[in-house]
Amino acid sequence: MPAKRTAGLVGVTGYTGMELARLLAAHPSLELVRATSRGEAGKRLADLFPHLERTAPGEIVVTMPDVADLKKSCDVVFLAVPHGTAMDMAGELLDAGARVVDLSADFRLRDADIYAQWYNLAHRRTDLLDRAVFGLVELYREEVRNASLVANPGCYPTAAILGLAPALKAGLIEPDGIVVDAKSGATGAGRGANTAMLYCEVADSFRAYNIGKHRHTPEIEQELSRAAGQGLTVSFNPHLLPMNRGILATMYGRLTRPATTAEVREIYAERYAGERWIRVLPEGGLPQTRNVRGTMFCDIGLVADPRTGRLVVLSAIDNLCRGASGQALANANLMLGLDESLGLDLPPFMP
Amino acid sequence: MPAKRTAGLVGVTGYTGMELARLLAAHPSLELVRATSRGEAGKRLADLFPHLERTAPGEIVVTMPDVADLKKSCDVVFLAVPHGTAMDMAGELLDAGARVVDLSADFRLRDADIYAQWYNLAHRRTDLLDRAVFGLVELYREEVRNASLVANPGCYPTAAILGLAPALKAGLIEPDGIVVDAKSGATGAGRGANTAMLYCEVADSFRAYNIGKHRHTPEIEQELSRAAGQGLTVSFNPHLLPMNRGILATMYGRLTRPATTAEVREIYAERYAGERWIRVLPEGGLPQTRNVRGTMFCDIGLVADPRTGRLVVLSAIDNLCRGASGQALANANLMLGLDESLGLDLPPFMP
Amino acid sequence: MPAKRTAGLVGVTGYTGMELARLLAAHPSLELVRATSRGEAGKRLADLFPHLERTAPGEIVVTMPDVADLKKSCDVVFLAVPHGTAMDMAGELLDAGARVVDLSADFRLRDADIYAQWYNLAHRRTDLLDRAVFGLVELYREEVRNASLVANPGCYPTAAILGLAPALKAGLIEPDGIVVDAKSGATGAGRGANTAMLYCEVADSFRAYNIGKHRHTPEIEQELSRAAGQGLTVSFNPHLLPMNRGILATMYGRLTRPATTAEVREIYAERYAGERWIRVLPEGGLPQTRNVRGTMFCDIGLVADPRTGRLVVLSAIDNLCRGASGQALANANLMLGLDESLGLDLPPFMP
Amino acid sequence: MPAKRTAGLVGVTGYTGMELARLLAAHPSLELVRATSRGEAGKRLADLFPHLERTAPGEIVVTMPDVADLKKSCDVVFLAVPHGTAMDMAGELLDAGARVVDLSADFRLRDADIYAQWYNLAHRRTDLLDRAVFGLVELYREEVRNASLVANPGCYPTAAILGLAPALKAGLIEPDGIVVDAKSGATGAGRGANTAMLYCEVADSFRAYNIGKHRHTPEIEQELSRAAGQGLTVSFNPHLLPMNRGILATMYGRLTRPATTAEVREIYAERYAGERWIRVLPEGGLPQTRNVRGTMFCDIGLVADPRTGRLVVLSAIDNLCRGASGQALANANLMLGLDESLGLDLPPFMP
Repeated sequence: MPAKRTAGLVGVTGYTGMELARLLAAHPSLELVRATSRGEAGKRLADLFPHLERTAPGEIVVTMPDVADLKKSCDVVFLAVPHGTAMDMAGELLDAGARVVDLSADFRLRDADIYAQWYNLAHRRTDLLDRAVFGLVELYREEVRNASLVANPGCYPTAAILGLAPALKAGLIEPDGIVVDAKSGATGAGRGANTAMLYCEVADSFRAYNIGKHRHTPEIEQELSRAAGQGLTVSFNPHLLPMNRGILATMYGRLTRPATTAEVREIYAERYAGERWIRVLPEGGLPQTRNVRGTMFCDIGLVADPRTGRLVVLSAIDNLCRGASGQALANANLMLGLDESLGLDLPPFMP
Repeated sequence: MPAKRTAGLVGVTGYTGMELARLLAAHPSLELVRATSRGEAGKRLADLFPHLERTAPGEIVVTMPDVADLKKSCDVVFLAVPHGTAMDMAGELLDAGARVVDLSADFRLRDADIYAQWYNLAHRRTDLLDRAVFGLVELYREEVRNASLVANPGCYPTAAILGLAPALKAGLIEPDGIVVDAKSGATGAGRGANTAMLYCEVADSFRAYNIGKHRHTPEIEQELSRAAGQGLTVSFNPHLLPMNRGILATMYGRLTRPATTAEVREIYAERYAGERWIRVLPEGGLPQTRNVRGTMFCDIGLVADPRTGRLVVLSAIDNLCRGASGQALANANLMLGLDESLGLDLPPFMP
Repeated sequence: MPAKRTAGLVGVTGYTGMELARLLAAHPSLELVRATSRGEAGKRLADLFPHLERTAPGEIVVTMPDVADLKKSCDVVFLAVPHGTAMDMAGELLDAGARVVDLSADFRLRDADIYAQWYNLAHRRTDLLDRAVFGLVELYREEVRNASLVANPGCYPTAAILGLAPALKAGLIEPDGIVVDAKSGATGAGRGANTAMLYCEVADSFRAYNIGKHRHTPEIEQELSRAAGQGLTVSFNPHLLPMNRGILATMYGRLTRPATTAEVREIYAERYAGERWIRVLPEGGLPQTRNVRGTMFCDIGLVADPRTGRLVVLSAIDNLCRGASGQALANANLMLGLDESLGLDLPPFMP
Repeated sequence: MPAKRTAGLVGVTGYTGMELARLLAAHPSLELVRATSRGEAGKRLADLFPHLERTAPGEIVVTMPDVADLKKSCDVVFLAVPHGTAMDMAGELLDAGARVVDLSADFRLRDADIYAQWYNLAHRRTDLLDRAVFGLVELYREEVRNASLVANPGCYPTAAILGLAPALKAGLIEPDGIVVDAKSGATGAGRGANTAMLYCEVADSFRAYNIGKHRHTPEIEQELSRAAGQGLTVSFNPHLLPMNRGILATMYGRLTRPATTAEVREIYAERYAGERWIRVLPEGGLPQTRNVRGTMFCDIGLVADPRTGRLVVLSAIDNLCRGASGQALANANLMLGLDESLGLDLPPFMP
């Protein structure tokens, strides 16, 4: 058995860190060897997260982030730190020669001005933007293989882009006037102490937030414009679900020509033929977030509505796995020359 | 103190029946005197529903539905039975001279052909369609006062119509291309035994259903066409939330002219001035279902998005109270010459 | 119509403050005229809590706590502040001549040494301990009527004492070896920002906490000792439920003699005859927290188990209403010479 | 790579069937080759359960149960059918020479009279009772290896026995007067259509059921009597949690001698040394159901309470995995000569 490859994780205390630890615990060829946190350095990871007791990652002692050590010890480093912080850390690691998968937003947008405008922050490492590959494997698999810096897509953009790109690419829907109505479980809001995210503030309720101004908007527009072959804007609007995991995006486009659901389905099936993680549902099928829980699957449902001239596309992912840590791991697999699905072929966790 | 008026409830075992009993328990001027159920006749209501022990409705003995008795005993009769059944029962009651609030869909659509098409059922009491008033008090208050038959609006239509009618009336948005993306708590699915609605099938998950073909669509289109002064179609798409109560509808229309959120808000505030149950939120405010829980409130949030040329309207109601039984009670109040808000001015149940 | 009496609320931002505002919004004879918060002073209450828009309490402007003003403006003052803080504030208010209902633990224990031992804090107003009445109306109704200071019982003690006192009083169970296994919804943990109480940390999980050392233990023991006529200890152990409201306590005592469930039930029914809020369930009935949601009801189920010689008592309350703010309001009603149930006779909020 | 061993699953449509399919999808050495259901025969399993699309079990076509075929095709057969049905099916399979893991209660009780008394049913295959091994690997590992019929333990008994057996074996607690207060997620109630288990009947509420008369009682007493070396009765009382998976049992025994938590912990740690799935928590640690979600772990927390002379033992398991299907798989692994943990070493699913 060949030695395992090694991974580092900068920022282990949040939900994406937790999820990466879960996935790496079961990975046959990649081992978590470093986990960092400024606040929790010195503790065994399993003391911090008792669920990890008796797993390999549980034995790690959390350390302070140290670029030289990470570079030396890890074949790949995952950054699970906030945007703004990530760009500096990624820069230092890349300067030192490390491979980096950045789960933050810092390298997703190719245009630094758009970044500045949406994140209200000047980008400090624009020199790296050209090296960064947008890590959506169904779109950029080959580029990821050769990348030293992967910008792991946002959770909402993953659902939206996988759901809409084929229709735009095929000219099925107008690029103009697209609506993405997206709903996410509460892990998407992170693990910081925050009254608005207390159990009793989220349970038994539902609400929208950041209507028209969520920072994932430019990321969606960037990739959908590319699919459409022309610039476009999207009305992207997120909502908070009273549940832990899962995103369902309901997306609306105007059909460019009369088309049946079967025809649309066929176009999607062809586009995603051979893609192990995309399940284009049979006609009449609609995705449920639980059907993809804990996995890399993106389930896509399609309904062409002749009455309104609309195509309705529904896509469901697990925001933590496919929308963050699992996708990061798929990217790392590719960067390390491994099969992209290693450690990621678990069945959905149901119910 | 004047004698209380009397109410009958046909079909007490579902969630709308439960909710009517809750509201009537606290009503100062209307008393539940009959509650019927073919399956549970003979039981005290409090034996069926232990939460009603020590409330006035709890003391009622459930009976078989009997038109003559209902007519004689009740100033108003609520029908909480399935569509199809309701039209016959309403017909018999009206023929006998009773006042009826029908919570089913049977008298909501003015056009029997559209009813037949969406419900796959020929209407057997088309003679009554002209007498039926659509019981949305903000739109038809005066007509309700004089009605003998009120068609209580559907839950989704209540949220959609209250949210969109002002914008259409004012010509703010194009009548064409409207999207209503609606999400409802699980009480909306009724109380029948059904594997798909088991706790473990609904909890911790989210899904859409009946995309493009939900039966509330023609009801929404009927009333929005009236507001717009022209026929229109709506892409209405419902979703199931892992929670008990509440509907949030997120609605998208194309602005007919550049308008700020403040301008739009002003139009809504004027339209709903004096309406006690419509809360047009301050600019920046977005509705949450819990803020209206257990009440008649409809909270409306408005965002004009210049980037996409869209108006986004969000409306939140309690599907059981405002979307069904509370609204039915408001209609009954009006029909009986009472203040419409009697028994309905409870604050939201939070959290 | 006589002028309403007036109430002040010190500490409006937590869940008990929220609940008091909800109840006072519907109270026919008591009006909230002051609501204080050091952190939120200056805001309209409805701006802080949008669900209170269009309710009377929503119009109040939050102020800094001011003893002289509270004394002057309010017939009764509710303290919804942490223990330790409450004793000083209550002291100042009483010194100024106000009537106080303290929702904290500061005046519940008659023995200052026991307070010091469990709360790790020396009591600074031992002079007031004799004046304080333990505000469980079924046990101390007459004393409450004449009190200037009511110590509102803890949520768990309310459920435990109401459930066990009759059996101890009647000598049905041994005073020794009682187990109280209690489970509470998450509102019991308060509204402070706290990672452990985030939605994703509480949802879809269940755990115990403070086994053998919860601070409600001495309060339960104090009152059960009184019922038993002898000192006793209780093994009290709380758990956190993934839901907002409700406590269910499952309690175990050793029967002193063979007794049937029917006999036990009869003893309870007699003890609580005339008590509007205690519902001793019929034989075979078991309480559910939802059956008491939003109310003052305490539902009690009883099972005598001859196989093990145990009496199992189950009691369910709403921790926020009966276990805190509703009970405080009942006490205030009594202190003001009003009917104890004013504003508190709403039916359970179901589902 | 050696050929995989083969498994059959009789009764695939419930939650235990679902869970077995999930686990077998990731098993390296055991393949699901038959899945039966009288109601769903003829469908692809993935058409029935869309989450299984793209997994190996998803490709199976559901068949009618056929003993000869099961015997011929499967190295081991799992029975996930109701008690009463299971005894006949198990009998036929064993008569035909098959290896059987029965997830029902039919072979758990060694005494047919006790079975008849608690299940109100005469046992029809008492001839097999001696062959049946109680499949709790920590207690009966060697017997399981040689068994042809394993009676898979009930979910509650698994939690209770693992939690209490060491204390009884060591004489730490009195055999008399033990209380097991157990709480379970809703998957424990099965997947049949049932109004009482609808989402809106279970969510946001908590209740007990079957106080003093749950059928898992004799199973717990049988095994704890064996641990104690003398007959005993247990007051076992289950509750229904508003969540999908997980059991937490809080158990109370009277200490036979003063003992510290550290001493008790040491006894448990020794007893379970080498047991990969038992995590005796550090002093101060208390189990949470989410920490074991989706796994075979049983987390045990211990608190010796000198004030009351009680030992409080808390154990948490996943009722579907450890309490049913995962445990069944561990037993199958042993019966087939495989490592017991094959396919069962996934980390907890968090959050």
